[in-house]
Amino acid sequence: MTEKAAPAPLARTVLQQCVHARLQVAPAGQDSEAEWVQINRGMVIYVCFFKGATEDMLPKMVSTLLNQRLCERASGGVVSVLDLPGSVLVVPQATLGGRAKGRAMQYHGNISKDDGLRLYQRFVSLCRAQLQAAAAGEPRSGAEGAGAEVEVQSGTYGNRQVLKLDTNGPYTHLMEF
Amino acid sequence: MTEKAAPAPLARTVLQQCVHARLQVAPAGQDSEAEWVQINRGMVIYVCFFKGATEDMLPKMVSTLLNQRLCERASGGVVSVLDLPGSVLVVPQATLGGRAKGRAMQYHGNISKDDGLRLYQRFVSLCRAQLQAAAAGEPRSGAEGAGAEVEVQSGTYGNRQVLKLDTNGPYTHLMEF
Repeated sequence: MTEKAAPAPLARTVLQQCVHARLQVAPAGQDSEAEWVQINRGMVIYVCFFKGATEDMLPKMVSTLLNQRLCERASGGVVSVLDLPGSVLVVPQATLGGRAKGRAMQYHGNISKDDGLRLYQRFVSLCRAQLQAAAAGEPRSGAEGAGAEVEVQSGTYGNRQVLKLDTNGPYTHLMEF
Repeated sequence: MTEKAAPAPLARTVLQQCVHARLQVAPAGQDSEAEWVQINRGMVIYVCFFKGATEDMLPKMVSTLLNQRLCERASGGVVSVLDLPGSVLVVPQATLGGRAKGRAMQYHGNISKDDGLRLYQRFVSLCRAQLQAAAAGEPRSGAEGAGAEVEVQSGTYGNRQVLKLDTNGPYTHLMEF
C-alpha cells in the first residue's frame, strides 16, 4: 500500500477559538487614534492563499470552515462556529505560507498581493453571507446563547495585524484547501 | 520533473509572536485560585506530536525553532527568538493533529498520551536549556533590550490551555518536523 501524496495546498488556515478578540484595522495617525474591530465568543481564522488559488474554491472552503466542528461548547461537546453560534474574526496572515530555507523563511509559494487581496475580500464576504444566512434561519437545536448577536469582522489586508486574543483554550486547528 | 512527496510529519508546530502571553497551568479549585505563567516579548510555540515521533528528533527540532528567523524586530528585520532575545511559551496543543473526516475532526495520527507527555516534557527542557545557553553566551550583536530577562514557560500537558495573548502582529508560522 502506498500513501497518496497530498497535493500542494492552495490555501492554508489556522483556526483558534476565542472568548474575545480585538484586531487593529487602522494604525494611529498623527491626528487619529488606531481603529479596532472586535468579536466576542467565536473563531479566529488566520488565512493565507498560495499561487494557483482561485475564487471558485472559496464558497466550499468557507462552508467547510464554518460547518466543521472546531468549537468547544462550554457545556461539553464540539460544534461548528455556526452551531455555537459564534462570531468570526478573519486575519490575513501571509506568514502562514512560509517555508524554511536555512534559518530564513521564504514566501515564494504565496499568491501575488493583488490576487491575494481579491481572494481575501471575497473570502470575508462569503463568511459574512454564510454566517448571516445561518443566523437568519431556524434556531439551531441546543444552541447556547440563542439570540446572541454574531458577526464577521476582518483585518485590513497588508496591515500589521495587531491582535489581542482572550481564550478559554485556543483549541488550535490547521486546515488546508 | 515530479514533485517529491513530503513524508508525513512527526511533529507540528504553530508559532506566534507576542508582546505578552499568559497561560493557565492549574485551574481554580474549591479553595485555590487558578495558577498562571506568563512571558513578555517572545514566541508562543503550539506543539503536537504524531505517532512515530521520538526523543531523538527533539534537539534538532528545538534548535531549528529557536534559531529560525520567525520574530519581527521593532526596529525592522526578522530574527530568531534567541537573537531577539525573547522568551518562549510552550503550549501543548493536540488539536493541531486533527484531520477532517466529514464535519468532524479526528486525531488518529496523534501520539499516545503517555508518549506525548514524555516528548512534551523533554521538548520543554530542551527549549529551556538552549535558551539559557544562548542567554549565558556573548551578547548578540544588535540585540534589543540587552540584559532583558528571557525565560521558557510552558503549559500543563493535558489541561485546558486557557491563554491570553497580546501581540503586535502574531506573524503566525507553521513548521513541521
